[in-house]
Amino acid sequence: MKRTLGVCYYPEHWSEEIWATDAKRMVETGLTWVRIGEFAWSRMEPAPEKFEWDWLDRAIEVLGSAGLKIILGTPTATPPRWMLDKYPDMLAYDAEGRARKFGSRRHYCFSHQAYRAEARRITKLMAERYGASPHLAAWQTDNEYDCHDTAISYSHHALIAFQDWCAQRYQSPTALNAAWGNVFWSMEYDDFSQLELPNQTVTEANPSHVLAFRRFSSDQVVLFNQAQCDEIRKYSTAPIIHNFMGRITSFDHYDVGADLDISSWDSYPMGFLLDRVGANDTDKAHYLRQGDPDFQAFHHDLYRATSAGRCWVMEQQPGPVNWAPWNPAPLPGMPRLWAWEAFAHGAETVCYFRWRQAPFAQEQMHAGLLLPDSTPAPALAEAAQVASELESMPDVGCARASVALVFDYDSAYAWETQPQGADFDYFQLVFDCYRALRRAGLSIDIVSKDVDPAAYKLTFAPGLLTVPDSLAGGVVIAGPRTGSKTEEFHIPAGLAPEISGLQTKVTYVESLPPFAPMPIAGGGAFEKWRESIETNDTIILRLMDGSPAAVRANDLIYLAGWPNPNLWHRILLELASEISLTVLDLPRGLRVRDTDTHRFWFNYGPSVTTYGSMTLTPAGVYWEEL
Amino acid sequence: MKRTLGVCYYPEHWSEEIWATDAKRMVETGLTWVRIGEFAWSRMEPAPEKFEWDWLDRAIEVLGSAGLKIILGTPTATPPRWMLDKYPDMLAYDAEGRARKFGSRRHYCFSHQAYRAEARRITKLMAERYGASPHLAAWQTDNEYDCHDTAISYSHHALIAFQDWCAQRYQSPTALNAAWGNVFWSMEYDDFSQLELPNQTVTEANPSHVLAFRRFSSDQVVLFNQAQCDEIRKYSTAPIIHNFMGRITSFDHYDVGADLDISSWDSYPMGFLLDRVGANDTDKAHYLRQGDPDFQAFHHDLYRATSAGRCWVMEQQPGPVNWAPWNPAPLPGMPRLWAWEAFAHGAETVCYFRWRQAPFAQEQMHAGLLLPDSTPAPALAEAAQVASELESMPDVGCARASVALVFDYDSAYAWETQPQGADFDYFQLVFDCYRALRRAGLSIDIVSKDVDPAAYKLTFAPGLLTVPDSLAGGVVIAGPRTGSKTEEFHIPAGLAPEISGLQTKVTYVESLPPFAPMPIAGGGAFEKWRESIETNDTIILRLMDGSPAAVRANDLIYLAGWPNPNLWHRILLELASEISLTVLDLPRGLRVRDTDTHRFWFNYGPSVTTYGSMTLTPAGVYWEEL
Amino acid sequence: MKRTLGVCYYPEHWSEEIWATDAKRMVETGLTWVRIGEFAWSRMEPAPEKFEWDWLDRAIEVLGSAGLKIILGTPTATPPRWMLDKYPDMLAYDAEGRARKFGSRRHYCFSHQAYRAEARRITKLMAERYGASPHLAAWQTDNEYDCHDTAISYSHHALIAFQDWCAQRYQSPTALNAAWGNVFWSMEYDDFSQLELPNQTVTEANPSHVLAFRRFSSDQVVLFNQAQCDEIRKYSTAPIIHNFMGRITSFDHYDVGADLDISSWDSYPMGFLLDRVGANDTDKAHYLRQGDPDFQAFHHDLYRATSAGRCWVMEQQPGPVNWAPWNPAPLPGMPRLWAWEAFAHGAETVCYFRWRQAPFAQEQMHAGLLLPDSTPAPALAEAAQVASELESMPDVGCARASVALVFDYDSAYAWETQPQGADFDYFQLVFDCYRALRRAGLSIDIVSKDVDPAAYKLTFAPGLLTVPDSLAGGVVIAGPRTGSKTEEFHIPAGLAPEISGLQTKVTYVESLPPFAPMPIAGGGAFEKWRESIETNDTIILRLMDGSPAAVRANDLIYLAGWPNPNLWHRILLELASEISLTVLDLPRGLRVRDTDTHRFWFNYGPSVTTYGSMTLTPAGVYWEEL
Repeated sequence: MKRTLGVCYYPEHWSEEIWATDAKRMVETGLTWVRIGEFAWSRMEPAPEKFEWDWLDRAIEVLGSAGLKIILGTPTATPPRWMLDKYPDMLAYDAEGRARKFGSRRHYCFSHQAYRAEARRITKLMAERYGASPHLAAWQTDNEYDCHDTAISYSHHALIAFQDWCAQRYQSPTALNAAWGNVFWSMEYDDFSQLELPNQTVTEANPSHVLAFRRFSSDQVVLFNQAQCDEIRKYSTAPIIHNFMGRITSFDHYDVGADLDISSWDSYPMGFLLDRVGANDTDKAHYLRQGDPDFQAFHHDLYRATSAGRCWVMEQQPGPVNWAPWNPAPLPGMPRLWAWEAFAHGAETVCYFRWRQAPFAQEQMHAGLLLPDSTPAPALAEAAQVASELESMPDVGCARASVALVFDYDSAYAWETQPQGADFDYFQLVFDCYRALRRAGLSIDIVSKDVDPAAYKLTFAPGLLTVPDSLAGGVVIAGPRTGSKTEEFHIPAGLAPEISGLQTKVTYVESLPPFAPMPIAGGGAFEKWRESIETNDTIILRLMDGSPAAVRANDLIYLAGWPNPNLWHRILLELASEISLTVLDLPRGLRVRDTDTHRFWFNYGPSVTTYGSMTLTPAGVYWEEL
Repeated sequence: MKRTLGVCYYPEHWSEEIWATDAKRMVETGLTWVRIGEFAWSRMEPAPEKFEWDWLDRAIEVLGSAGLKIILGTPTATPPRWMLDKYPDMLAYDAEGRARKFGSRRHYCFSHQAYRAEARRITKLMAERYGASPHLAAWQTDNEYDCHDTAISYSHHALIAFQDWCAQRYQSPTALNAAWGNVFWSMEYDDFSQLELPNQTVTEANPSHVLAFRRFSSDQVVLFNQAQCDEIRKYSTAPIIHNFMGRITSFDHYDVGADLDISSWDSYPMGFLLDRVGANDTDKAHYLRQGDPDFQAFHHDLYRATSAGRCWVMEQQPGPVNWAPWNPAPLPGMPRLWAWEAFAHGAETVCYFRWRQAPFAQEQMHAGLLLPDSTPAPALAEAAQVASELESMPDVGCARASVALVFDYDSAYAWETQPQGADFDYFQLVFDCYRALRRAGLSIDIVSKDVDPAAYKLTFAPGLLTVPDSLAGGVVIAGPRTGSKTEEFHIPAGLAPEISGLQTKVTYVESLPPFAPMPIAGGGAFEKWRESIETNDTIILRLMDGSPAAVRANDLIYLAGWPNPNLWHRILLELASEISLTVLDLPRGLRVRDTDTHRFWFNYGPSVTTYGSMTLTPAGVYWEEL
Repeated sequence: MKRTLGVCYYPEHWSEEIWATDAKRMVETGLTWVRIGEFAWSRMEPAPEKFEWDWLDRAIEVLGSAGLKIILGTPTATPPRWMLDKYPDMLAYDAEGRARKFGSRRHYCFSHQAYRAEARRITKLMAERYGASPHLAAWQTDNEYDCHDTAISYSHHALIAFQDWCAQRYQSPTALNAAWGNVFWSMEYDDFSQLELPNQTVTEANPSHVLAFRRFSSDQVVLFNQAQCDEIRKYSTAPIIHNFMGRITSFDHYDVGADLDISSWDSYPMGFLLDRVGANDTDKAHYLRQGDPDFQAFHHDLYRATSAGRCWVMEQQPGPVNWAPWNPAPLPGMPRLWAWEAFAHGAETVCYFRWRQAPFAQEQMHAGLLLPDSTPAPALAEAAQVASELESMPDVGCARASVALVFDYDSAYAWETQPQGADFDYFQLVFDCYRALRRAGLSIDIVSKDVDPAAYKLTFAPGLLTVPDSLAGGVVIAGPRTGSKTEEFHIPAGLAPEISGLQTKVTYVESLPPFAPMPIAGGGAFEKWRESIETNDTIILRLMDGSPAAVRANDLIYLAGWPNPNLWHRILLELASEISLTVLDLPRGLRVRDTDTHRFWFNYGPSVTTYGSMTLTPAGVYWEEL
């Protein structure tokens, strides 16, 4: 498959006189796609029902006739100021009960029915007008759901919708009381109208209550997105895309992704490095201008799964951004490397954000491919290089993987609700496993819990809340905490882990402070979490005192703790020999990814790396045919 | 006196079919007491004035007839949801002015008169119904006053009650203005109705205002508890108990304790270790699975004082809990050791919390004596062992002590109100002294400031806000900050310290950051706090520059600073030789406690400890007759 | 010019019987001035329009007839409680939308028109009554504008006033939308009444919006102060003073200072050391009892500029204070040294705060010249010593400086609004430069951006938001970030830096985390901030990779980064030789300051320092005629 590049562009920010030149330069750079429109509601509809489409008509015509394919975004992330006059109660509320006011973006509550109807209305108008345009090649719904923590709202509208959601799910207060165990602390309800949102309780709310609210909140995002998809599909056959973000666990991306044709995400490797993957200062310094070597790969693999295999990068960082605590510049070559890493993981298209750096408003310190004075920024040449390289390489192949790793949003909600240890974080647990697999040179599919393990040599499911019976038929590595609760967040009647085929039971768990890891006999250690188990299965790892640390029943392995990096590697090595899996031990910063046609190598380190006969410069990318 | 064990049980959580088996196993384990009822209001009165007592009748009958003594708790810590419909304004408010909502527990304001009446009503009904039951052997009022910081509320009801409290105390706005020094910054009031609660002021409120509010808040807890005691005593002669918590200074436990027959507390050694006694990481790692070696002892000694000598542990940690930042498991043997430490300090009864781990709701990760599937958890055998040991030991003797240590809630309010140094904490100051005494192998009585020092070899009163004339007649060690304010929080007219018999005056004080302790000539240092003094008393310690650091006037010693551990030990050693007090220097983790019949030794260390001819394993307990 | 001492006094706090003795002792100590009245509104006007002036008449008479000059403060920082009954909406609101309640001080919103009128009314009454008094020698308006973060309020009154301010400034919503770039994210307004304050937006508000609000907030302080000055000048010719604070960037002190005759400030060296200049722990310990050696000097130089050269210290710390995280006592001699440092920087008068330590209310732990029992506190003798030294030294000369350093409040607002790096702080940037100049033994004028560089050998303007054309004609050192935005916070059309005469353009910037400084070839480094530049100017410094780090065009130097201390010193040394400026390298803690008659030396170190033939004890002051 031919991979392509694109860019994000805001014609409404610039004099119409330069649109044509911009379009021409985009094409000359080798870009195929241009995304427009997603923040321009106040220019499309400056007053209620007063429309100004002509400028957008012309922008699409200028860009399209220059040879660019248009991705048109619905502008629902930025309702105009007049919308607030119409619906003063449309705002989201934070957990402290404060309205989240107008003056930036995403100032709406997903549960506000009238605003959802407004979003559907503007989407319908755009779809009607542009759905048949020859230039219109894709749609984007809204922009970055949950950005600025907006998926979860504690508004009055959210409350009413939650009461209704509970009524639908549980049918009676008695059933809800039983499902949540409300007899505990006399928390029983007589009527759904008595239900409140689980914020501002005296101490922690019932975890079943919180979990229900998290599922409800996710469903509201799904419904909001669905309304737009429904309208678009009435008028257009172009694929529908949403641009997800990294490390977001506030809604179920599989559920939203199911309504899309393509999942995309916005990849900002450097901002995430410093505050979102718990790197230590040494790693932060080492990767300061390159970003974490596994973070982008993880999300490419994740979002390849959420819309049945089709994925993009909708926004690719081109230079320093404006929103991280510190914002250094990428090492020269990284904007190219990041794009190639995306393609190697199956991305069809990578769009750089943004064409020209805006000289005003919130993001004026966010780099683009051009400087505000239209001269080239450093990334422009890198984009052109990628375009030229793609030109000479008709197919980079499809991503393929021999190991699978389950990522499950319900599990994220559950452990955020009741972590039991201050640093028990589901994303981090799965990401630690992912990093170990990457370090071992493996290509990975991230999958939902509906995966068929028979399709892979190994399937990992750490921390999976509940385990379906279908999760069997291949080598499955479960634990810690896998299958430890019921759907409604009770301890299973037969105790954890509730995994078919296992004769092991957790008698108690320990969350471990950072200074108290528990070493494993033979090497490695548990950190953060350890389970005391009674077992009739084969014990394959033991703590230093001889108590069981991991067990095996046929193809099912259960880890009774959170492995540190050395233990993950040891487990992999031991399994690899059994199942004829080639496991590497890559030097720091070197990463590899296979497609069905090529093997790609990436150097995330700040200096030259050699590996076998290969030498990669910093930010170096190398590929070979398989 | 015969010491006993008990357990906390929630019949409403379990099928009635297993109650009898549970009761039988409790008795077989050697338990004497079972506490029930304290969170079951929604099951006793599912709707206003609609009662369902039958299940509770049967539970009491099943448990009682199995041979268990019942402790019946009033359920007022968990008003049912319908109570909120009746009194939507019954909630407490936090200092930021936010209502603390329904959905967990303790969702009431102590100043809400109508809710106080409801609490009295349900108490009366229970006392009427069960007061004469042969199985009913003790009462518990409410549950853990102040848990989740609920003693202090900034609700409208609290405001009205506070205005009235001030009117009663000061009689006129003019008198209040004078008492508080409101001329400062034009803070004078013309009418009690103008008074506000001291939260959300532009900068700190007048400390006299805050201190009054703290005293008022404590009085509200006293009144709430008193209402229940009054009702119970009309119908029952069984002792009334409340279960206090550790390290709580938000209300006066002496005042509440005066209305009780027995003070009890809920002892969770491991949760407290990690976040409540300022331990460093080395100590946290060393005592990770044992808890602080002095924290429980301190509270046993404290609560032995609050109800004239009668004390219990109402909830004893049996295994990992769910609420600390990290929750590891106790070292095997600790649930036994903790019980024995309690008995050695005079506790009559120790109840483990809880019988069976609940598989649902907030505390599902809190261990019990049984697992959720009714198989034994590790602590069950330890409880049985303690029961068996008690059986073979008819009397452990009464706690006895040669030294006294004053703990005073008013002083805690005062220094929390105006600490003057970021780490000046009254509890920590007293606890540091206590720890020094424990390390020296001394048995301690914690006492109110009404203590007669003649009854002890040494009486310590660090940080005591005001010093009564009765605090004389034995060797008294005062300071720092002792007697430094008047009752209404002014500097005394003759300057601090206002202690009869002392010719010493503080000219200024210094709060010291952690990196700036002040060494004492001859060894030890002041940390956190140091007072510059002028004195006509005998100087017994000097700073390195020769200025006085401690003085003595006959039997009265004044410390002009906060001693570090070495200085505390030095002071003790020097006094001990004078008054023939045997002072040990116990190895780390070893602790000793005397009763009038036995000496008990406890090993809190993680490894074997030898001392003289004695060898104690980790979690080891050893006793010898005196 | 003859320099004088004074003291702050509160006759309303003390029995009238001791006023005369107090006055006599003040005069005997050598004090010339006494400041009174600024918190006494509730005693001047105990009820609306019910006045009690007689006590103040007598206090002025007693103090004045003893020979003291009176500074009379308007009491508008402490409106009485009845004012709240009259205007319940007069309170300021914080950024979280919470009212800032009565019960301490400064409980008013600067935008509340009715309260501003009340402040004008009481000022007029005082000016009428005392304006012609022979004892009345100066006025103080209000007290410490912005203390406790009170300059910025998010009240409804602030909103209405802000909408009006915007209407005046921009004249039309269209113009405002263009000025702010509101097309970005559809933030466009149709009407000024739609504008909100820039708090509680979903993510950051438009920086142009925030900057406008900051300028508006500053203007409100100016108007509030102006109203009082206007009234006073109708009835009195005595100079009008306000007491500013240290490190305050919430309003423009030049603008307020323009309405005053004298700028004064309240100097508390020790409280500031620990929490306001980012000192490391080593420096905090080294200077614990002396305060930062440059902080006071900086503010003397700053406030000498804000009212055309006339400056005072209105409150001088005499001993331990009550408001810092820790409050140790000054090294003996520091209250004297601090006064001399002020005089050496041009202060006409230094008033110690306060005469007698108050034994009640919020500041009872704040030292005075007397203890609460009227015996001398340590600083009394030091004040007497300074008075005696002044007596024997008719003139200390006027402050003079060869280098200028621009400090600009607009720039502070701008970089607080959008720092781009977590530790980019304008005050710190300017202060780092100041410290480097002090370390080099230079005497400095702090100046507004309207300075004429021809008047100085060197003029520094780091971080200056916009650069006027007048900033030329001498050697000017600009950057980093100087001239990088337009007045409305856009990137200039020709890119940063917009400085006339420079052919250099910033292509991107990097904010650098603490672990990633960028070394400069030849010594020194950039920290926190670095700009990538393209230049046709002369490159005078380069990074290790050869890219330009500083450029020069004739007399204009531009630094493309934030120099660390070594780099600042290197830059100074290289310039000094060119322009014949004597640059010292002072040992740690030694500081020097010139007047036109004397050179003063100050030892801020905790031990004896020798320099050349000079030996200074700790807290030592030495002066020599020039």
